[in-house]
Amino acid sequence: MALGTDYSGQDCSLARALELVGERWTPLILRDAFVGVRRYRDFLAHLDIPRAVLAARLQALVDAGVMTKVRYQDAPPRDEYVLTAKGRELWPALHLLSQWGERHLSELGPRRVYTHLPCGSRLEAGRCPSCGTVRPEDVEVRLGPGAVTSRTDAVSVALREPRRLLEPLRTS
Amino acid sequence: MALGTDYSGQDCSLARALELVGERWTPLILRDAFVGVRRYRDFLAHLDIPRAVLAARLQALVDAGVMTKVRYQDAPPRDEYVLTAKGRELWPALHLLSQWGERHLSELGPRRVYTHLPCGSRLEAGRCPSCGTVRPEDVEVRLGPGAVTSRTDAVSVALREPRRLLEPLRTS
Repeated sequence: MALGTDYSGQDCSLARALELVGERWTPLILRDAFVGVRRYRDFLAHLDIPRAVLAARLQALVDAGVMTKVRYQDAPPRDEYVLTAKGRELWPALHLLSQWGERHLSELGPRRVYTHLPCGSRLEAGRCPSCGTVRPEDVEVRLGPGAVTSRTDAVSVALREPRRLLEPLRTS
Repeated sequence: MALGTDYSGQDCSLARALELVGERWTPLILRDAFVGVRRYRDFLAHLDIPRAVLAARLQALVDAGVMTKVRYQDAPPRDEYVLTAKGRELWPALHLLSQWGERHLSELGPRRVYTHLPCGSRLEAGRCPSCGTVRPEDVEVRLGPGAVTSRTDAVSVALREPRRLLEPLRTS
């Protein structure tokens, strides 16, 4: 049987959060947004996702205040999807879930390595061992020993280089 | 169109983690496990979920090494579902996502309040402001001002009282 998309009988803020960000593909759209992807065609190139699903997920994130649309071209009109402050606050939860995957589901070592740029320390459990809490915009991500670089779309190629989180990624 | 259940084209430990714990209802099954729910009938009573879906999700968690089955009765045979060490390591990610929901999606204040039992401090961003990293078994959860207590199933009633995380919940 089909499952609904909400958890209306559950009085729980995890359930409320999952209704917004737990749908299939949404966490990976957010992951891409944190590494700087902002444009529809770039999300589309990097995610193996039907156009209609991508459009619906992005609109749901805008409706929820997790992303906002920013016009970057007038003729024809084109918008970028940019994380809001509320959206950026999702980084620790998403990062810790990915770190759980790195520990348990990445046999060749971590696929990505995260460094706190102001001090150069490698993050541990989403924090800087020297400075404590970090802001995602102060974090650099680069490929680790477990990474597989078989994808050749423009976003995947750009992500082979070290990047500062949230820095806009431009593929053309 | 139907979406598949994996992210096979995504070389990413977040994708791998989501394949195990991102399916609909699975995060709430894990949430219940952290507050002590272990028995099939208790998950069923507390979650508005078809029996077949619950059974499939629990089995997938066992297959992934996130939970293990522990026999608690021989005639007829009955098993409890208990989080493994690997499963317990999911707590910080799930907790931070629920805290994001508490901040942004709970108008009457937090639905749950978490306290570090050894020192009595209220957790902040999944950590103890006095002691730092916490183990879930050292955390007490109790209802907060935003909680709604309309459910009358045995698990919901038991959860109205303060509880230590991971302490087995018995409803009969």
